[in-house]
Amino acid sequence: MGIDFTVFKGSKSGEIVEAKGHRDVGPTEALIKLSHCGVCGTDEHYKHADQGLGHEGVGVITEIGSLVPQVSDLKVGDRVGMGWIQKVCGYCKPCLTGMLIQGQHFKCVNVEQFGTANRDEGCFGTGIAWDVSALFKIPDSVGSEYAGPLMCGGATVWGPLYEHNFKAGDRIGIVGIGGLGHLAIQFASKMGFEAVVFSGTEAKREEAKAFGASEFYATKGVTKFEGIKPVDALLITTSVLPDLSLYIPVLAPFAKIFPLTISFDAIPVPALAFVLYGYQLIGSGGAHPASIKAMLEFAGKHDVKPTIEKFPMSKQGVEDAMQKLRDGKVRYRGVLEV
Amino acid sequence: MGIDFTVFKGSKSGEIVEAKGHRDVGPTEALIKLSHCGVCGTDEHYKHADQGLGHEGVGVITEIGSLVPQVSDLKVGDRVGMGWIQKVCGYCKPCLTGMLIQGQHFKCVNVEQFGTANRDEGCFGTGIAWDVSALFKIPDSVGSEYAGPLMCGGATVWGPLYEHNFKAGDRIGIVGIGGLGHLAIQFASKMGFEAVVFSGTEAKREEAKAFGASEFYATKGVTKFEGIKPVDALLITTSVLPDLSLYIPVLAPFAKIFPLTISFDAIPVPALAFVLYGYQLIGSGGAHPASIKAMLEFAGKHDVKPTIEKFPMSKQGVEDAMQKLRDGKVRYRGVLEV
Repeated sequence: MGIDFTVFKGSKSGEIVEAKGHRDVGPTEALIKLSHCGVCGTDEHYKHADQGLGHEGVGVITEIGSLVPQVSDLKVGDRVGMGWIQKVCGYCKPCLTGMLIQGQHFKCVNVEQFGTANRDEGCFGTGIAWDVSALFKIPDSVGSEYAGPLMCGGATVWGPLYEHNFKAGDRIGIVGIGGLGHLAIQFASKMGFEAVVFSGTEAKREEAKAFGASEFYATKGVTKFEGIKPVDALLITTSVLPDLSLYIPVLAPFAKIFPLTISFDAIPVPALAFVLYGYQLIGSGGAHPASIKAMLEFAGKHDVKPTIEKFPMSKQGVEDAMQKLRDGKVRYRGVLEV
Repeated sequence: MGIDFTVFKGSKSGEIVEAKGHRDVGPTEALIKLSHCGVCGTDEHYKHADQGLGHEGVGVITEIGSLVPQVSDLKVGDRVGMGWIQKVCGYCKPCLTGMLIQGQHFKCVNVEQFGTANRDEGCFGTGIAWDVSALFKIPDSVGSEYAGPLMCGGATVWGPLYEHNFKAGDRIGIVGIGGLGHLAIQFASKMGFEAVVFSGTEAKREEAKAFGASEFYATKGVTKFEGIKPVDALLITTSVLPDLSLYIPVLAPFAKIFPLTISFDAIPVPALAFVLYGYQLIGSGGAHPASIKAMLEFAGKHDVKPTIEKFPMSKQGVEDAMQKLRDGKVRYRGVLEV
């Protein structure tokens, strides 16, 4: 059997390249007929690499490896989502302590073998092989077209909210309303937190409220916020990192700051304020496997749903979706559909 | 009754000024005849202010307020230590949730009333009034001359080690061997961690080992460390913040970085590495009250003891101790003795 697939890859010039492939199933793998894949800002960083793009894939299992029944409940016909990594290695400390976060696995000793780097396959395509250790069953209540953006974008905002000991009623500052921000507002408000939203202009105020924001503040032209009750967390979801000094006076003691997008810049952190007020700057690249399972269940039960724009799973579709994201015009997550 | 005391204050010119004072006891206060006070780098920042200096005071209670028997076990004759703050306000969230950390209390709504700012008294002196909510009984096994440096310096390194969920065998990187670093090595090794020490030169290698360091690395001239097993924490105890980029390759995934000294600089934090590897930069200004009690017990039982140099509690003594600290020549904590 095995699976024949089409995959859309990056290339030296940055042009999207369509390629064909075939994969037989490995002993602990599943083969998946892809139906959808979300389009994430991080895909942009691999555009110039000769590798399959896309890491928010969703599809149906068509074949499982010989060992899968011994290590997993997954079976042929299951709808599954996949994320950053292709396999939980099972050897490194983050894997063994359950601390594994998708992106963090890049520091795993087995990254060369199992990481996304230089892989020929990608979720921008029609089929893929994936180790079942990094596959997640999609609850029936979550539509396939909505599941993709949850796998990376959703996990990215869920990780901070779920894994860092916030308490009911805590005030979660969310900077930016985009692919990540609009999910963060929904999760935060439905988890019993106050979603305190900061956006450039007033344009998205009503939408933010509809997503569940309890407060909304436009940042444009503001040099100092006055009268905002302090926030216990700050999720920075903008593609460009904002100047932290605008937000420092809005932080409660011990506030946790999460810069969530991939940025190659350095963040200047005011050391004195950190020491005096116990602030924390926490790197977070997703959510660990048990956490992703909890997120999918929660999203299904509480109807947390990305607002999506569909594009066809084709060279043109990939190019259009990535260009629109680059232009900052996607409301709020692009999804490629086979 | 009340207490007559001498106190050594800062002044506009930076000269140490000797002043006299008298305090009667407030209802929830104790009056303390001071015997010792440690000299901390932070005192330097108040040298130009018209306020009492010193915040690592130790002494014996001579009188207690009318309400003290109802709110505390402290009694006349007890040896006690005091720290940054003069009172746990009991109103702000950090106080009420037990999260209070000494320095953080500056953000308490009651800082004007209860904070150290603009106070006339200080622990560089012979007597003081202090609210019993912020007084700590010194165990019999801890000598008064050693207790002072534990109250701020000790708490500063204890907080990160005790309150941030490290586990036996975790590797604690300690940058710098001074007033804070030499205590961090002792605490870390006796708490069951590996103390991995980074110091400018080889000069303090043997001393570091004697304090309990399991590994020692000189940093001078090093542009890239090779072959060091990654550390789970990095306690930065140097008065000048080092370039983080030297240490990033030495960090294990999810490592926690604590810049522990007061610095007015910004720390440039590499955003990408933080997101990929889950690093955390955690501001910590001490330890909360329950944590300080645990530290004093632990120090007494495990013989964690600052290496001290004594100076007389006099104008000249204060000036000499502060000058020697400024010159980086104290081994490892100056203590003023009445």
